[in-house]
Amino acid sequence: MTYQFNTMNDRRGTNCSKWDVLESKFDVPSEDGLAMWTADSDYPTAPCVLKALQDAVDHGVFGYWTDNSEYHKAIQWWMKSRHGWDIDTDWILTCQGLGNAIALCLDVWSAPGDRIVTFNPVYHEFEFKIRKAGRVPVQCPLKRDGDTYDLDLDTAQDMLDGTEKMLIFCSPQNPSGRVWSREELKQVAEFCARNDLLLISDEIHHDFIYPGHTFVPMDVAAPQIRDRLVVLTAASKTFNIAGQKTGNMIIPDDDLRAAMAQRLRSLDYSPNALGLKMVTAAYSPEGADWVDAQIAHLMENKAIFDEGVNAIPGVRSLPLQSTYLAWVDFSGTGMDFEEISRRVRKDARIAPSPGPEFGPGGETFLRFNLATQKARVVEAVHRLQTAFADLQ
Amino acid sequence: MTYQFNTMNDRRGTNCSKWDVLESKFDVPSEDGLAMWTADSDYPTAPCVLKALQDAVDHGVFGYWTDNSEYHKAIQWWMKSRHGWDIDTDWILTCQGLGNAIALCLDVWSAPGDRIVTFNPVYHEFEFKIRKAGRVPVQCPLKRDGDTYDLDLDTAQDMLDGTEKMLIFCSPQNPSGRVWSREELKQVAEFCARNDLLLISDEIHHDFIYPGHTFVPMDVAAPQIRDRLVVLTAASKTFNIAGQKTGNMIIPDDDLRAAMAQRLRSLDYSPNALGLKMVTAAYSPEGADWVDAQIAHLMENKAIFDEGVNAIPGVRSLPLQSTYLAWVDFSGTGMDFEEISRRVRKDARIAPSPGPEFGPGGETFLRFNLATQKARVVEAVHRLQTAFADLQ
Repeated sequence: MTYQFNTMNDRRGTNCSKWDVLESKFDVPSEDGLAMWTADSDYPTAPCVLKALQDAVDHGVFGYWTDNSEYHKAIQWWMKSRHGWDIDTDWILTCQGLGNAIALCLDVWSAPGDRIVTFNPVYHEFEFKIRKAGRVPVQCPLKRDGDTYDLDLDTAQDMLDGTEKMLIFCSPQNPSGRVWSREELKQVAEFCARNDLLLISDEIHHDFIYPGHTFVPMDVAAPQIRDRLVVLTAASKTFNIAGQKTGNMIIPDDDLRAAMAQRLRSLDYSPNALGLKMVTAAYSPEGADWVDAQIAHLMENKAIFDEGVNAIPGVRSLPLQSTYLAWVDFSGTGMDFEEISRRVRKDARIAPSPGPEFGPGGETFLRFNLATQKARVVEAVHRLQTAFADLQ
Repeated sequence: MTYQFNTMNDRRGTNCSKWDVLESKFDVPSEDGLAMWTADSDYPTAPCVLKALQDAVDHGVFGYWTDNSEYHKAIQWWMKSRHGWDIDTDWILTCQGLGNAIALCLDVWSAPGDRIVTFNPVYHEFEFKIRKAGRVPVQCPLKRDGDTYDLDLDTAQDMLDGTEKMLIFCSPQNPSGRVWSREELKQVAEFCARNDLLLISDEIHHDFIYPGHTFVPMDVAAPQIRDRLVVLTAASKTFNIAGQKTGNMIIPDDDLRAAMAQRLRSLDYSPNALGLKMVTAAYSPEGADWVDAQIAHLMENKAIFDEGVNAIPGVRSLPLQSTYLAWVDFSGTGMDFEEISRRVRKDARIAPSPGPEFGPGGETFLRFNLATQKARVVEAVHRLQTAFADLQ
């Protein structure tokens, strides 16, 4: 089956966060700017998801929803067949997605002023959520090792004062694309046990794993710390349906789950019907086939991008083990971040995510979203080479 | 334009709360039972809403959403053109709908153990939400006056102990359909001011007003108590899109609004894109035309239902001033509630909402949802007449 990954489209004027704020947020011209920041994809979602939505339109009645069992079974099937993870459907609590899930975890299991640990550079929304909730981020560094990152649990240990409540961990890791090994995951789990931290494991990028790497769910790597584990997943990145605000907290432990379920009940939270329909359709053999094709598409984009960008002296796109988010180090150019950013935004007319937002370690980086049509990646490479042509 | 209010359809097997739980919840046979309980409609939503959704399917990309300004303007236009209510778009905070809004109001403006006032009989979810949040319901009676209900603020006053935090008020009133006059609304506002109560005004049924009655928004009737007013609205009942979990808290007062906005931010709440699209399309001239046609349809259903049911000796369907929810008093039959319920469920094979759920005053009532195809109302009347034929 052929899919539309390379069919050009125009998302401007569709209330699209990624493309409709190029000027206001990035000072990049809307008419020919390239949006390569926020983590959604420019191509349509899977045909099986569109079909489910079309069926709903044809039915036409959008009243109250009941019975999430098909939805739960689809999630269970996906975790088992794609990730070798056996989950009970009872473990699933649905929320609005990753951001809402983190906010809810902070709300239920910490108090204002509490210290919350992250390993940086990491998804910037971790810090934003922690601050929005009036908690205090403790940003421990990952160790840069050439083209990759390693855990640095010794340094992290030194930074704790013993009052921390929670680690928000990203696996596979955004922005570096690092796929943690089973052994590394165990070390993280032990770190949490040793420091009495709840472990919030953001596994939202788990479906974008490149050949040669294997994603291991935290619950598979370290089932012994289930009594402190909350896993966050969603079909939103995988299937490009982030706007539908449907994600899950998968919580194996009964007591932890009961606490979160009670909070959701007291807020009278319930998921939106079309989001449930779309995810149910997505987590299927048809959806899996589309994801496989998407990964092949992303590998092409990645090869084009890395080759082109790495040809610029002093610029290094770290080889991605996972995710569609190229993490590019400009430190070798000797330029300060302001100049790098100016050239990319003003000369290349590209809006990537600024590395400094990802915390310590991101100072000289930009993150480029490659989940787009190949022609746009080719164009981005061309513009970047031109913007930094004086380095040749 | 003709609409599909009378086209027969089958909602069974569509994860439909109203029809898919007939056996499990009501012990009414699924094969020929009639679902007349929860407040959604059996006919499709407005064509303009379906068109907006179809456009989204055709675009196919469901990434992150930005810019709610069209959505806000549509709400502003609707409140002005349909209800004569001038609102600033800034006043609008979006949430998941009425239930979530009440839960959030309880969360922000009360604490566990606090006493929360309602005027009963009233929408049963008020009490459920109050209890779920660990607050204490203070259920003050409305005064039954023949075919209608009046406020009874003297009795309510006597029931307060001075520690109450909030009145959750329903206008127009579910289940009685009472449309409160401007003078009555002022009295409610003064009651809240006198007792230092926050006034949560649930106005979700405001679009279903029958000829001869005029709905007045609380903010129009009593702008002087804006500093204690939160108005809850949604397009969900009006356009039959409750499954999309999109509603609004309209809060004119800056300080109240800031407190709720901060809570929503700390929970990282944001609405789902298709819900926003659907509501934006609904609150339009095309949507208004459909609503007018829907009201004409409901008047027909109401006339058929009332005539048929009132022909049963001892049964009285109170004349509705608003809503599609017939409030039927069986007290004149002399039967106890169990027998009434048994005949309706087992003999007539109809699932209405049980009156006792609506609190004091609902003991001898059943609430029948008339937002369905005319043929179903005709059939329901026939079955009810048969089930109570021995009274003739």
